[in-house]
Amino acid sequence: MLTLKRLHNFSAGPGAVPDSVLALASQALECLPNIPLSILGVSHRSREFVAMVEELEDNLRQLIGLPADYECVFLQGGGSLQFSMIPMNFLRGQALPAAYIDSGYWSHKAIKEARLEGTAEVVWSGESDAYVRLPEDHELPADRDFSYLHYSSNETVEGLQYFREPACSAATPRICDMSSDFLARPIDVTRYGMIYAHAQKNLGPSGVSVCLIHKSLLERCPEGLHSMLDYRKHIGMHSAYNTPPVFAIYVVLLVTRWLRNDIGGLAAMEQINRRKAALLYGTLATHPEFYRCRARLADRSLMNVAFTLPTAALEQQFVTEVEDAGFYGLGGHRSIGGLRASLYNPVTEASVTALTEFMSDFAQRHG
Amino acid sequence: MLTLKRLHNFSAGPGAVPDSVLALASQALECLPNIPLSILGVSHRSREFVAMVEELEDNLRQLIGLPADYECVFLQGGGSLQFSMIPMNFLRGQALPAAYIDSGYWSHKAIKEARLEGTAEVVWSGESDAYVRLPEDHELPADRDFSYLHYSSNETVEGLQYFREPACSAATPRICDMSSDFLARPIDVTRYGMIYAHAQKNLGPSGVSVCLIHKSLLERCPEGLHSMLDYRKHIGMHSAYNTPPVFAIYVVLLVTRWLRNDIGGLAAMEQINRRKAALLYGTLATHPEFYRCRARLADRSLMNVAFTLPTAALEQQFVTEVEDAGFYGLGGHRSIGGLRASLYNPVTEASVTALTEFMSDFAQRHG
Repeated sequence: MLTLKRLHNFSAGPGAVPDSVLALASQALECLPNIPLSILGVSHRSREFVAMVEELEDNLRQLIGLPADYECVFLQGGGSLQFSMIPMNFLRGQALPAAYIDSGYWSHKAIKEARLEGTAEVVWSGESDAYVRLPEDHELPADRDFSYLHYSSNETVEGLQYFREPACSAATPRICDMSSDFLARPIDVTRYGMIYAHAQKNLGPSGVSVCLIHKSLLERCPEGLHSMLDYRKHIGMHSAYNTPPVFAIYVVLLVTRWLRNDIGGLAAMEQINRRKAALLYGTLATHPEFYRCRARLADRSLMNVAFTLPTAALEQQFVTEVEDAGFYGLGGHRSIGGLRASLYNPVTEASVTALTEFMSDFAQRHG
Repeated sequence: MLTLKRLHNFSAGPGAVPDSVLALASQALECLPNIPLSILGVSHRSREFVAMVEELEDNLRQLIGLPADYECVFLQGGGSLQFSMIPMNFLRGQALPAAYIDSGYWSHKAIKEARLEGTAEVVWSGESDAYVRLPEDHELPADRDFSYLHYSSNETVEGLQYFREPACSAATPRICDMSSDFLARPIDVTRYGMIYAHAQKNLGPSGVSVCLIHKSLLERCPEGLHSMLDYRKHIGMHSAYNTPPVFAIYVVLLVTRWLRNDIGGLAAMEQINRRKAALLYGTLATHPEFYRCRARLADRSLMNVAFTLPTAALEQQFVTEVEDAGFYGLGGHRSIGGLRASLYNPVTEASVTALTEFMSDFAQRHG
């Protein structure tokens, strides 16, 4: 058996990055292919960087079929800053309240920030049910208009994922935190007013986020916003209102090239992701008394497989043994414990197969 | 003559990074030295990353002699987000106005954001004088108390640098944008309430900023701040309130190691920087009719040498020829044009010597 060059990375984020992207990024730190400079030394006002942003935007538009009436902008601050910028730009001063779905750790965090800017109504919450499922459409107030409906398409902590857009009125734009499943499957962008995603799950390194915003929403931006918190400022300066995170943007560009050229697009990516998830959930199902999955079957995430063992001692044993066996990042989120395997785009089927072999063996030894 | 591996990088930022740091960062993208993972795949909750942040903070504390009553925190959003966070946290709700020195492009930009939060009084402006000098102490209202005095220690666009802290009353904390000369010389931190600097001049890649804040200032932070804009939240979570820019922080760590171990500290760094600036300003002075420097002699920056040529056509010729000769980033800022050579810490004396040789030759051919 070959010694692993790197650990199998199942971290919930920052997570795995494709091997070929790491190799190219490593070379670009020494020297870019088309100019004898490190990527770290490239000015954000240079023609080289402007071309990178243009190609990245074009790749994203091609991959997801983004219509021309959506803006595409790259920002710092992660999903958490979007929790604030969205209500600052799109709720402040609006007559209608915003609707928020509280389906887990991350969508819950967004609500507190929105309430600093206006009325954020929690239209459904899974909190009392310990976040084991997502809402049914009939549980949502689709007969009422809101400034927008905010939700998270994938809850990384609890391992829940939407397989359709939640219901809302025709006049209510959906604003979706797609941080942990953006580019992991095809989407119909026209069903959203805004989609945002930080990079450190499926897109590359931490430090940059992608925002896709329908132009009509931008008419709402109030006067008096701080420049760095005003979407219009960033869009008007093509993601370079101030110095952007050049390296992170370059790596995301490499990831989009990998998705287009090596994987063949989002439909192909989804098939791979479905096979990986089927393999892992299948292993859990083979040992139902040992590996337990809290999430409702219909809402189980293809991205984050959250599970528990019969005792906390066994979970600790699992974490220790799985690390020794060459797997990284299997501990559950600090808020709920347990175990979690994240299967973002760059995680290979070979890595998942190796993990399931470990898990079957572990279950037989300790079950 | 050897072929250059990389261009001589005189960019105003993102700028040069030490060769040895680029080599180590390039390796870390493939695999970190102490764990078989790419730096891009390391979780921000891992012991490895926590240790990186601790070592980085310790290095900074050692390099600049930071007392224990100052917090040290790493944030996203560059200096521009600090233009907003500072008045949000330290001016909002305060009885006294803030004092702002308007000494160039960057300090000017900070004023507009402050005025969204309270009264920001411009206590001195060089605007009518086209920003050719910095204020004398007797021009500043040091007999009045302000919430704080904000200034930029180095104006990258105009090439102006303070060689002493501007005067203010004993009760007025100085808040200094040190983005373009932080770690370029020793400082007496106790003369400041807060120092901030983005990384992409002297510290490493774009995408992360360092903030040093005296604990007493934090008592002013008002309630109702958005979490991502509240210094206390970031400090309480040791710079990991949300996912930080892991790679950028790692490179800044490598740069601080280089400063401590290879350069030998900030006093040694300042000597190198003074020699580089003397070499370049000396070359300008040898051709006073050809290379012209607008900045007043006493205020000329050691970091950014801004100069002009007799005609715009000659400046264009200079930019073209200097690029062909293997030098990068010599164009002036888009706001004022002209030419500019940035001499941040990583720019070597050999690079500056090579540039002065080009410039002497260019002056002889075209002067």
